[in-house]
Amino acid sequence: MLKQTLHHRRQQLATLINFPAILWSGNTNPRNFPANVYPFRASSHFLYFAGLPLQNAAIRLEGGKLELFIDNPTPSSALWHGQMPTRDEIAEQIGADTARPMAELESYLEDAATIPVQNAATWTQQTQLLNRWVLPQQPPQGNDLELAKAIISLRLTHDAGALIELRKAAAVTVAAHKAGIAATSKAKLEAEVRAAMEAVIIGENMTTSYNSIVTVHGEVLHNEHYHHPLQPGDLILADVGAETAMGWAADVTRTWPVSGKFSSTQRDIYDVVLAAHDACIAKIRPGVEYGDIHLLAATVIAEGLVDLGILQGNPADLVEMDAHALFFPHGIGHLLGLDVHDMEDLGDLAGYEEGRTRSDRFGLGYLRLNRLLRPGMLVTIEPGFYQVPAILNDPNVRSKYENIVNWQRLSEFTDVRGIRIEDDVLVTESGSEVLTDALPNQAIAIETIAN
Amino acid sequence: MLKQTLHHRRQQLATLINFPAILWSGNTNPRNFPANVYPFRASSHFLYFAGLPLQNAAIRLEGGKLELFIDNPTPSSALWHGQMPTRDEIAEQIGADTARPMAELESYLEDAATIPVQNAATWTQQTQLLNRWVLPQQPPQGNDLELAKAIISLRLTHDAGALIELRKAAAVTVAAHKAGIAATSKAKLEAEVRAAMEAVIIGENMTTSYNSIVTVHGEVLHNEHYHHPLQPGDLILADVGAETAMGWAADVTRTWPVSGKFSSTQRDIYDVVLAAHDACIAKIRPGVEYGDIHLLAATVIAEGLVDLGILQGNPADLVEMDAHALFFPHGIGHLLGLDVHDMEDLGDLAGYEEGRTRSDRFGLGYLRLNRLLRPGMLVTIEPGFYQVPAILNDPNVRSKYENIVNWQRLSEFTDVRGIRIEDDVLVTESGSEVLTDALPNQAIAIETIAN
Repeated sequence: MLKQTLHHRRQQLATLINFPAILWSGNTNPRNFPANVYPFRASSHFLYFAGLPLQNAAIRLEGGKLELFIDNPTPSSALWHGQMPTRDEIAEQIGADTARPMAELESYLEDAATIPVQNAATWTQQTQLLNRWVLPQQPPQGNDLELAKAIISLRLTHDAGALIELRKAAAVTVAAHKAGIAATSKAKLEAEVRAAMEAVIIGENMTTSYNSIVTVHGEVLHNEHYHHPLQPGDLILADVGAETAMGWAADVTRTWPVSGKFSSTQRDIYDVVLAAHDACIAKIRPGVEYGDIHLLAATVIAEGLVDLGILQGNPADLVEMDAHALFFPHGIGHLLGLDVHDMEDLGDLAGYEEGRTRSDRFGLGYLRLNRLLRPGMLVTIEPGFYQVPAILNDPNVRSKYENIVNWQRLSEFTDVRGIRIEDDVLVTESGSEVLTDALPNQAIAIETIAN
Repeated sequence: MLKQTLHHRRQQLATLINFPAILWSGNTNPRNFPANVYPFRASSHFLYFAGLPLQNAAIRLEGGKLELFIDNPTPSSALWHGQMPTRDEIAEQIGADTARPMAELESYLEDAATIPVQNAATWTQQTQLLNRWVLPQQPPQGNDLELAKAIISLRLTHDAGALIELRKAAAVTVAAHKAGIAATSKAKLEAEVRAAMEAVIIGENMTTSYNSIVTVHGEVLHNEHYHHPLQPGDLILADVGAETAMGWAADVTRTWPVSGKFSSTQRDIYDVVLAAHDACIAKIRPGVEYGDIHLLAATVIAEGLVDLGILQGNPADLVEMDAHALFFPHGIGHLLGLDVHDMEDLGDLAGYEEGRTRSDRFGLGYLRLNRLLRPGMLVTIEPGFYQVPAILNDPNVRSKYENIVNWQRLSEFTDVRGIRIEDDVLVTESGSEVLTDALPNQAIAIETIAN
């Protein structure tokens, strides 16, 4: 199965480029000293065509052929790392046409395009061997750009092999969130809820696909602290996803009450966010603009906040003046695949249709995906509501939206600091499929798990 | 308390060097794309003098003064990362004499020594600003070497502030191991035992100080796979340690039976390893050579294996010809502090007394510490027994030790693939204190936790 999947992927690549591509896997990054490394993560582009998280390897792709470059394990490595598969065994497993030591790679570089790996030792090696700068922070040019675009066009829609892995990641992520909700009643710290969630992921021999967010301060969008005590009136926002051993990711957020029961203000806002979530998913189908999904979320949130008396005016006008973005300042979601923001190592090349660029508007600038949806794309849908002090206490904001926000009414919602509901949605031929729909998202269902 | 600790450390440094030192904290390492980073770990040398895991900061130490260089949080960072402490607040917390933006660091570089940080962006910055190569893989020279030696002489023995943290790390590590042993009866995979252990560490808002080893293949010394199913006759070897938020580490190994009960062969070998462990700890006191502790372990293991009929001959002679190293091929332990192999970023400068170098002997070459013990040093004691196929099936080994090993007798111990018992031992004025002694290590006590 792996062999066939990889064979099909490189055959497709061969129809898109007429020059060789060499993809490096990367190497470990030292943490506090050279022998104490962060867990190895192979480059996603390498994983897509090589299937296995091989360390310090490269593949050369040309005309549908797969050439593997990797060193055999040394005798002394057997002492420390045990019996490792040989080069030929790996080549057989992934269906490589040839297999050679890394040192021979330098004889196979002519006219090859590549993509920089995030690991410094690796992009240094790429730069030295190819005799030109290959830098992660530099936009690709020439054939490197053509290669990037070709890979993007493949990775944008997921094949059957990818979907098997993505469903595994989704299933474990669902279990992790259920465990987190269930563990809350006995937990005293955010860290304990995080532990319950990550234990599910670790126990399935997976890793987190990004640093978990598990916090009672959901209004801090990238909060990576876990030291806050849990108070009965708090909401916990948990944005936690699993990644399979082959590198495929899930990305899910749920928000639930520490006490096991939403307050009426919390439930009111929760239902607004859920309405946006459901409306977006209902609209997903091939041919729809993802940007329109974002605007739909903005509109539903504006409507909901008008209904609650927090915003004043016509929802369409409110969205036009970015009033929704006071409370929903980020994008409705992004591509998901081998990377949790899929192919974001290539900047916006993957997320934005050719010719499109990010908007300057406050409410649109953080949108990571702006493409026409196609069957096989996997996207997140993650509307939210946040009371971010840095936004809402900004004097310019206060004056600009003085009569748009009912600040008095808003002050009744102080127990709603941050809510987000995020699922992973596959675009199908006829509409969509929520890969993470085994995890309930209705307030009442969340309360049931919590109690 | 933190302020006083840091003040004392830099006063001590000032007595050892007469030039300024600048220590960078480092920055995050990207994982698969720039925004998806590994958890930040500040440089240990920075942590020792700055106390807090500040990102993208530097401190300048001269004559007992502490100058902090760090940028204030940007307004937009408040959206993503929340309200962060300002430069002045941090300076106050750590007792800095002055505090300036990072951009001003370039005016304070003259004659400064430094130590390279493992992060590529940081050592690139160090190299550019100091206008000389500052590379992690290059041994320090000149004043950099003098600075390294001065810091080593301080960090070799732990002060009260360090010990508070090290005891916290030890306590959480003890709890993690107890949880792992207790979780085994219900676990089907190595990964599930690992999850139970790391959940304790995560739940205490700590991190692992190194990649955990939790395996039924303890004979693979750096086994970082967790996919093996647990079989009733297996031993689990778990080498797992916690690291506090301020960066201080623990490092503990226990080995226990999946079934909850050691077989008689497993218990026989276990007791040999435990005898070596206990003998080493009993011998630890100021003025003792750590190398002699290693040789004591080798001797006790050789004696035990002679008693079991696995080795044949006089124990002292067996150690002389490295026969013990067939089964105990690594060193008896290492320094422990902010790094799990403390200060190993400086090669053997910390581990080896000046003028000493690693032995060529198979049984001694992996010894990481070769110094006279002094009060305040924290070391691991971690004897083990392993049947490593790469060693025991080596034809040269088989012939060299043909009459030394009773291969027939050894074949009765196939259910003992790997055993290690590791504790963290503080050298005190009068002897030693085992920081991790709340975790039982006798076979019977281990069985009690398992059942």
